[in-house]
Amino acid sequence: MNRSREFTITLPAWCGTLEASLPERIPDRDERMRLAVELSRRNVEEATGGPFGAVVSTRDGRIVSIGVNRVETDRCSSAHAEIVALSLGQAALHTWNLAEVDGAPLELATSCEPCAMCLGAIPWSGVGRLVCGASKRDAEATGFDEGERSADWVAMLERRGIEVHTEVLRAEAARILHDYRERGATIYNPG
Amino acid sequence: MNRSREFTITLPAWCGTLEASLPERIPDRDERMRLAVELSRRNVEEATGGPFGAVVSTRDGRIVSIGVNRVETDRCSSAHAEIVALSLGQAALHTWNLAEVDGAPLELATSCEPCAMCLGAIPWSGVGRLVCGASKRDAEATGFDEGERSADWVAMLERRGIEVHTEVLRAEAARILHDYRERGATIYNPG
Repeated sequence: MNRSREFTITLPAWCGTLEASLPERIPDRDERMRLAVELSRRNVEEATGGPFGAVVSTRDGRIVSIGVNRVETDRCSSAHAEIVALSLGQAALHTWNLAEVDGAPLELATSCEPCAMCLGAIPWSGVGRLVCGASKRDAEATGFDEGERSADWVAMLERRGIEVHTEVLRAEAARILHDYRERGATIYNPG
Repeated sequence: MNRSREFTITLPAWCGTLEASLPERIPDRDERMRLAVELSRRNVEEATGGPFGAVVSTRDGRIVSIGVNRVETDRCSSAHAEIVALSLGQAALHTWNLAEVDGAPLELATSCEPCAMCLGAIPWSGVGRLVCGASKRDAEATGFDEGERSADWVAMLERRGIEVHTEVLRAEAARILHDYRERGATIYNPG
């Protein structure tokens, strides 16, 4: 076996086409969530990953990065949509700290509430607002394991100065998870 | 601003030299931890990242991948040593699931107990054993924020079938964190 010296996570080609068609700004929070849900839907349709999408933006809606789940396709168990979107935002802005951009922290919108890993990643990223679509219950009904998250997770983020909005366009977001299950696609949590 | 379509995390050059000098197998668990601690030490000395190192291996000690913290250097807040080592192991083995390798799950040895993000990442990676050096208290004494981890985290992993060994070579591992603090280097948690 050859050891690896680097790893790369890449958006699928259709994301480039979709990004090129986006306006520079999406001022409405619900419309940014609609984009995250659209990413989760397309990712399943195009068979490029699991049913999860995420968007990083400024508070006034400038789109900094998009992300989709790439676990199976890029063979990386931590390539959840949130980690992909945050990392691509940091790559584009040349900083690991999204709290220091234009004087205001950025927003992460995700089509589904973060799992334990992504929840832990959010404070390290510097984002100041988290917007969630489908709930943990929706994810778990589909068979996805969200990991051990404190019941108190919203308050935990708020204590760190991160604003949290949950169940934004929840029905649309949960529908994508439901459809994914109906297709009989992989639920890729080991164990 | 140009949006990014991919991001890459890379080991520093000295890791290649070090890897070339490693035996194929390190059968002793404490010696694998010694390697993780050596990685954390060299990463500070070479100014290539924070004071954290990790090693992924088979149960009989075949070294699959190594990782060091690359948060500042690769401008990626999730590039902790554990995530880097797990992702490089998955890249080398062409699978996101380290539970399916040679019929036995792999081991992750980390110079410091995982933060909330890395703790959440461990079950998704498929590893079957976690070996930790320095404790959360050692990390926090240095000024690093480990995030919101349940006090019950060892039992949580064990319930998922993951064996946990803590405080292995703790004094050596904690010493690197202490020295890092003495140098007045960056403690890179936002907020």
